[in-house]
Formats: sequence, C-alpha cells, structure tokens
Amino acid sequence: MVDCRASSGPADPRFFTRVGPFDASVLAETAGAELRPPRQGSFPQDGYTGIAPLQVARARDVSFLDNRRYAPLLEHTQAGLVIVAPAFADKVPEHSAALVTTTPYLAWSRIARLFHPRQIGKGGVHPSAVVDPSAVVDPTAEVGPFVVVGPDVQVGAGCIIGSHSVLDHGVQLGADCRIGSMVTLSHALVGDRVTILPGARIGQEGFGFAVGPEGFESVPQLGCVIIEHDVEIGANSTIDRGSVNDTVIGAGSRLDNLVQIGHNAQLGRCCIVVSQAGISGSTVLEDYVTVAAQAGLIGHIRIGAKARIGAQCGVMSDVESGADVIGSPAMPFREFFRNVAVLRKLAKKASGSAKGDSDKV
Amino acid sequence: MVDCRASSGPADPRFFTRVGPFDASVLAETAGAELRPPRQGSFPQDGYTGIAPLQVARARDVSFLDNRRYAPLLEHTQAGLVIVAPAFADKVPEHSAALVTTTPYLAWSRIARLFHPRQIGKGGVHPSAVVDPSAVVDPTAEVGPFVVVGPDVQVGAGCIIGSHSVLDHGVQLGADCRIGSMVTLSHALVGDRVTILPGARIGQEGFGFAVGPEGFESVPQLGCVIIEHDVEIGANSTIDRGSVNDTVIGAGSRLDNLVQIGHNAQLGRCCIVVSQAGISGSTVLEDYVTVAAQAGLIGHIRIGAKARIGAQCGVMSDVESGADVIGSPAMPFREFFRNVAVLRKLAKKASGSAKGDSDKV
Amino acid sequence: MVDCRASSGPADPRFFTRVGPFDASVLAETAGAELRPPRQGSFPQDGYTGIAPLQVARARDVSFLDNRRYAPLLEHTQAGLVIVAPAFADKVPEHSAALVTTTPYLAWSRIARLFHPRQIGKGGVHPSAVVDPSAVVDPTAEVGPFVVVGPDVQVGAGCIIGSHSVLDHGVQLGADCRIGSMVTLSHALVGDRVTILPGARIGQEGFGFAVGPEGFESVPQLGCVIIEHDVEIGANSTIDRGSVNDTVIGAGSRLDNLVQIGHNAQLGRCCIVVSQAGISGSTVLEDYVTVAAQAGLIGHIRIGAKARIGAQCGVMSDVESGADVIGSPAMPFREFFRNVAVLRKLAKKASGSAKGDSDKV
Repeated sequence: MVDCRASSGPADPRFFTRVGPFDASVLAETAGAELRPPRQGSFPQDGYTGIAPLQVARARDVSFLDNRRYAPLLEHTQAGLVIVAPAFADKVPEHSAALVTTTPYLAWSRIARLFHPRQIGKGGVHPSAVVDPSAVVDPTAEVGPFVVVGPDVQVGAGCIIGSHSVLDHGVQLGADCRIGSMVTLSHALVGDRVTILPGARIGQEGFGFAVGPEGFESVPQLGCVIIEHDVEIGANSTIDRGSVNDTVIGAGSRLDNLVQIGHNAQLGRCCIVVSQAGISGSTVLEDYVTVAAQAGLIGHIRIGAKARIGAQCGVMSDVESGADVIGSPAMPFREFFRNVAVLRKLAKKASGSAKGDSDKV
Repeated sequence: MVDCRASSGPADPRFFTRVGPFDASVLAETAGAELRPPRQGSFPQDGYTGIAPLQVARARDVSFLDNRRYAPLLEHTQAGLVIVAPAFADKVPEHSAALVTTTPYLAWSRIARLFHPRQIGKGGVHPSAVVDPSAVVDPTAEVGPFVVVGPDVQVGAGCIIGSHSVLDHGVQLGADCRIGSMVTLSHALVGDRVTILPGARIGQEGFGFAVGPEGFESVPQLGCVIIEHDVEIGANSTIDRGSVNDTVIGAGSRLDNLVQIGHNAQLGRCCIVVSQAGISGSTVLEDYVTVAAQAGLIGHIRIGAKARIGAQCGVMSDVESGADVIGSPAMPFREFFRNVAVLRKLAKKASGSAKGDSDKV
Repeated sequence: MVDCRASSGPADPRFFTRVGPFDASVLAETAGAELRPPRQGSFPQDGYTGIAPLQVARARDVSFLDNRRYAPLLEHTQAGLVIVAPAFADKVPEHSAALVTTTPYLAWSRIARLFHPRQIGKGGVHPSAVVDPSAVVDPTAEVGPFVVVGPDVQVGAGCIIGSHSVLDHGVQLGADCRIGSMVTLSHALVGDRVTILPGARIGQEGFGFAVGPEGFESVPQLGCVIIEHDVEIGANSTIDRGSVNDTVIGAGSRLDNLVQIGHNAQLGRCCIVVSQAGISGSTVLEDYVTVAAQAGLIGHIRIGAKARIGAQCGVMSDVESGADVIGSPAMPFREFFRNVAVLRKLAKKASGSAKGDSDKV
C-alpha cells in the first residue's frame, strides 16, 4: 500500500536526479550574488548538497527568502546557506552563510537548476511511434511511445516529444523543444526551446461560423499558429489557428494551464497569460503584457505594451500601454478599488438608515 | 532551423490544399452575390486562384470586408475581387471587381470552402488501432492510429476518427462525423456531421455525490450524452453524461474550447457557447441561446429561446426568451451599464468631496 | 443511421449493466430508510427491477425526490417505490411504496449502486501497453491499450488504468484507483480508491519563472503531487506539482472538470472544487472548504475550514473558517447582495431624476 503522505521533501530522489555537491564559491558565481560567510562557524567542508525550503533545510542545504510573507521563517532556519535580498541580509541566522542579491528568486532558480539539470533526451524514435516516411526527425531528437508524426513534419535537434503526441501534416519544430505527452500540434510553426505541457491543443480550427439559411456554416480556418522561440505553454491550454492571418505567440511568452487563445490573436514578446484566462480572436497584445488568471479579453482589441490585466478582469476595449486594469468591465486599479469602497459605504449607510426606519416602527 | 515567422500567408500550401482557379461567375454563384466588374480593366483571364485578407491580396485573389473596423483597408487593397455589403460597394477600388451581398461573411465562407474543400477521409482502419470484433465500422470510415473502439460501437459512413481517440462501449456515431485526436467518447449517441475537436471529453461521469457518514459517496451516473446532428464541440471541452436523464446538445449547436457542460443539461437547437463558459447540471437552454465567453450558469434553471448571456455573466435564475443579460449576478445589459456609470459618478463625487474635505483641513 | 435521440431512458442497457430484482426490504436496508407499503395495492411480487426519475418510472422502478423544485412531479409518478424526506412522505401517491429518510439523496445513491454495481477490472496488461520492466503492477490491476508505465512505477491491487494513460517515472498508485483514458501522472503519489477522469494532467511543472536579463527563466519545480485516499478529480483538470513543497489534495476531496490547482497548493480533507475554478500557488484550503464554479483564489492565502466560496468569486485575501463569501473581490454573501440591491436602487433613482430633468426640458 502506498503511504500517500510519503514525499521525502523537495527534490524527492524518486522523481528528481541531483548532481553536486558544490562549494559556496561556485554557488555564488552561479547566482551572481555576494557571498557572506556564516558569522559563527564555517562553510561545510564538502560543499552544499541540495536545495530546500527554509523550514526543512539543513546545514548542507541552500534555501532562499523571496516573499516577505515568509520572513518569519528565516530566523529559525537550519539552512547552511540562504539567498536573500539586501534588506534581509542581517536577519540570516548566525550559523548560516548568505548569498545577497537584488534578484534572489532568479539566483534561487539558477542554483536549483545547477543541482537539478534539465533532462536531456536520449534521442531516437520509440518503435511504437508512427512516423511518416516524408518526415524529417533529427537523429538527436527523442520521439516517445505512440507518437504520430505526419507527412512533411520537421523535428529539430534535441527535441523531446512526449508519448502519444501528434505532429500533424507539415508541422515544424525548431531545436530543443520539449513537448509533453498527449499534445496535439497542427498547422503550426514552432521555434527553438519551446516547451509545451501535456494535453495542450495547438492549431485546431478556430470558432468561426456564418449564419446560413439552414443553421450555422463553418468558415474555413486557413491560417496557422506561429510559436516563437522560448515560449512555454501550459497543460490543456488551447490555441486555435488563424482564420486568414496567423495566430502568433511572441518570443519568450509564458502561458499557464487551461488558457484559451482565439484565432488570429497576436501576442508580442514576453507576454504572460495566467491560468484560465482567455484571449478572443484577432486581439493583439503588444510586448510584455500580463494577463492574470481568469481574465477575459474580447476580440479585435489592442492591449498596449507592459499593460497589466488583473485577475477575472473583463476587457471590452483597447488598453493603453503601461495601464493597470481590473474589474468587469475593466477600469484602472485605483478606480476599481475606490468604487468597491464607495459602494460598501453607501450600502452600509442605506442599511443603517433602513434599520433606523424600521426601529421607528 | 525553423524560421518561426515563416508562414507564407493565408492557406499556406504546406498545410492546406487548394483547387481552382475559378471564374468570377462561378464565384458569384457560389456566393449568391451580385457581381460587379472592375470599373477599370477587366476580370483576370484565367480566373481567381485563391483567397487572402485585404492587406495582402493580389490581382487573382478574392478578399472580403465584413467588419466595419477594417474598412480603411479596402481603399488600398490589391485584391482582384472583394466581397462586400451594399454599403461598401462604392468603396471598392477601381481595379477590383466586387461581389455585393447582404451576407458577406457567409459568401466569404462559401468561396473559401470552394478553394479549400473539406478533407475527405481515405477510409480504412489503421493497423495500430484496437477495434473490438463486435464493433461495426462503416468501410468508408477512417480510423486513425492508436484509436480504441470498444464493444458494440457503431461508426457511420464517411466518419474520420483522429489518432488516439477512444469510443467506449456502445457509443454510436452517425455519418460524416469528424472526431479529432485524443477525444474520449463514452455513453454517447452522436448524430450526423458532428465535429469534435481534439481533447474533448464526452460522457464521463458527472459531478454527483451524496454526503455520507464517512465522507462523500459518489452517486451513480446512469444517463447518456446525446449529441444531435451538425453539432461542433471545441478542444478540451467537457460534457458530462446525465445522472438519470440525458445530457443533450441540440442540433446545430456550436461549443467553443474549454467549455463545461454539467450532467443533465439540455441545449436546444443552434445554441452557441463560447470559450470557457460553463453550464451547470440540469440547466435547460431553449433554441438559439448564446452564452458568451467565461459566463457561468448555475444548475436547474431555464434560459429562454434567443436569450443572450454576456461574457463573464453569472446567471443564478431563469432568463426570459430574447433577453440580453450580463453581470454577476446577471441583469439586463442596459441596467448593468447604467449601474457601472452611476457607481463611477458616485465614486468620483465621493472622492471629490473627500478631497475637498481634506483641502479644507 | 443513428437516431440521435434514441436513449432508452436511465441506465440504458447499451451502456450500463444491471443486477436485481430486489425486494423492498432489501432496498430499505440498503437505503437505511423506513419502508412504508403502498396505501393501495401491494409490493410487486418479484421485487423492483431498476431506478428511474419520477416522470418516467413505472411500477417496478424505484425513484426519488430530493430537490423541492421537482415536488410537483411526485403526485403523478407511476413509480412503485419512492425515496423521500419525511416532509414529503404523505405526498407519495397511494399506489406507491415509500422509503422515508432524512437523507434521500444518499439513499438514492446507494440503491442506484445496488442495481448498477461499480465496474470491476478484469486484471491484466493489454499487449499494446508499454510497461517498464522495473515497474510493479499488481496482477489484479487492469492496464488498458496504449498505456505507458515508466520506470519504478507502482500500481496497486484492483486499479483500472484507462487507455493511453501515462504513469511517469516513479509514480505510485494505491489500491482500487480508477484512472480514465488519457490521464497523465508524473511526480505523484496517489492513495487508495482515487478516481481520475479522462484528460486530467497531474504533476507537470508549475508556472514558475524568474525575470532574467534576457527574458524569463524557468524555475525548477522540485516538489510532488500528493493525492490522498478517496479523492476524485474531474476531466481535463490540471494539478501542477510543487516547486519546493508538495501540492496536496486532501483525503475525500472532490474536484470537478477543468479545475486548476497551482503549485504548492494544499487542500484539506473533503474539500469541493467545482468546475472551472482555479486555486493559485501556495494557497491553503483547510478541511471541508467548498469552492464553487469559476471562482478564483490568488496565491499564498489561507481559507478556513468549512468556508464556502461562491461561484465566480475572486478571493484576494484569507477567508475565515465557516465564512460564506462571494463577489470579486470576495465579501460576505449578505454584504454582496445588499450592495447589489443598493446600487440598483441608486441607479434607478439617478436615471429617474435624469429622466425627470429631461422631461422638464
């Protein structure tokens, strides 16, 4: 029987491989951070062996503090080395060394990656995969069990294609892409270093139909999906191909799980779209736009660069560059929270006077 | 290396097959539109070769204007033939012929389909598919790699079943259905010409449980899913089977991606449910209801015919036929936008007077 | 051709197996209910044969009334036996026997299960499945076609693994789990009697990245997913593994379709998360929390035991135990509906006086 509470803590060796140990100086260099030795005691003789959160880390572990909310944990940590922002450097316990940096989360990320390098594909096509003879799969690429690779598909060097995934007729993948299990890709041109998590649907026909005399008639969807370099796409997300233009996900963008991208939508560079958000057809996001969870954008609008769309926001018109909007319909953050406060006050007053009235009766 | 911006424009020949060329008269007949020759020059001698959006179309391309928003593009188009509504007929450039119709989007759809006919299955069962001997698969149907067809399943003429899809015990498909990759169908009776995009989940047990003395107890879900003729269902959408009655999707209805339909829900004819909307158990939509993106309907309510539920709307009670509602909780469109305006005004006033007060201090 | 309206009513024999018949006394014992014979006539001589809803049930069917909304159907039902709460016992028709209980839905559930017992796996591994030699699959477990079982995986007794599902490196399943088709499980430890519906994605990397000098850098996600005993997870839902801590779904919890659970989130015992709701990273739900459909919770907050989060609610801060909240941002139910009422009144007044003004002109 499985003890279902039996994870052995971070980086459980049943699931993650680990390399190391590493000396403090190597870690400081990896992190690009300033190394401060422990005020009491010294560095561990044989280096640090792994990473752990503050509350469970031990003398040979590296830990970090990024979120002010968890600052109380810092005081009691047993971690041998803690990555912190300058403001917290003095709060690190005496027995711990510190890596001080203005970007502690980035430093943490790089040190975690040092201990746990990214999986590298073994290369080769699983015998159960169905690969069309006209497809060109780089010999360094790994193609998993039950994968279907259609005619004229190209798969670049170092790609890993998870089991059961489908690369339909003509799909092109650049180098070093990681495609999870059960992903479908059709009508798509994909750049380098793109990650797609399991179950994402990319390139299916968009939601387009005309009203005919006897019901709806599907409008042919004749565009593609362009996924630029370094994009990551979450599990079970859906990106429809364009109807006449292409649907484009700009370089470096990050899409979370269960995100919907409608046909002809265009995302610029380094956009962020959080879980369960939806972007309707032909809407354009300029660079560095953030769309928070469960937000929805109607079609045919433009969101300016670096704008931030709040969670559950309903955007019905263009948003200016750099704007912060929230609410449904969308309005500036400040206005939204002012409205909330004013309504609460008015409602209290109304209910107070109503109560007063009834008291008089 | 893939040039990840390398789509060659609409109907990229790597992904789409094309037939033609076609003469203007054939196109006019297909579109059911009035043909007006170019005011300057003549029709291309060998007919039109394809379709393209206004900004990239050339002399042998057909283009269209449907959305007023894009009207400025009409003046500069190089398209040889443009489909337009009567109001825009005079704005078509001198060198372009025009197809004038009150339904330009429908005309566009039909002409695009003429150049790019729907894929027809090759028929036959892929050798990797697992088909139960008791299943009846029409010889003209095409069954893709790694498909699982269970006992007593029926698959009609001309169906195309995408790779990895599962037709569980007893499922019936009518004629000419298009089932994408990785679709699961169980406890389902499906009509003719039904399209289901990749990853849709149809017929799994609904979300039903009773509170027992030691936790929740699952209530057996003993209904089916009925998908009537000409329905289309989006990618990764979920339609639960009924608990005692059936879940029904009425003829001609269109469901977008990531839509949730709860057990026993009943949709009438030609309903539209846009992406990420959810319809809870036992709720009834009469014919021609539209539910916009991310809207949510609670269970056990009735939405009258031709009602329109706005984006992100939260519907907690019945909606009358023909009503337009939005907001959470749902209210008439007019009331919603009036409320928004009034609250904004009150909040400005309150903040103005607050500011006035503080100025006095 | 399929008659797409051809379901033969509840528990269609094409899809469901049925056992029985059962005597009224057996049913009463199963239900834990008080049996009242028909006031006119007698029990059917050979027992009851199945279940059906009030409006279609016949003399040998068992039916039930749970929702007050459907009470008018009781009077005209032909059902031979009806499960009802004490308040409705007198409304049961003369020709029908009654099973009277304070928990009619639970009683119904158990009687339905008696007629339609849960499917039991046949055991054995389908020859098309790819099972790593180091995996330990209990001989009583059933592994479907095209399943992939990775190294060091453990599958407990009585499990049923649906076709195409993937159990990645190191995954452990307890006894009697039901895994639907096309489920992906990685970095996961799963208890006993866990049900996962088709297309759910469990254990993929969470949405974590740091801002580096040249774009976003993915932060290694080094935690697991812990699914405790008796959990059920809906179709196409997504549960990301932890970043450093584990993502935990507490014993007996029920997640509906298209639900998103972010990395490090922790759900207590018997939580309910309804369709399309999302819980962001590191948020904690104590025991017996209910999150209604399309609600969204930001990260790093705590929801107290037995709190209820309403549909479409946007929760931005901690919620106290036992609280009922709704709205975006979340507020107590009472306050939300008071605000709605007050705003409506103010808006009517404003529009009335505006109308009054214009009348004067």
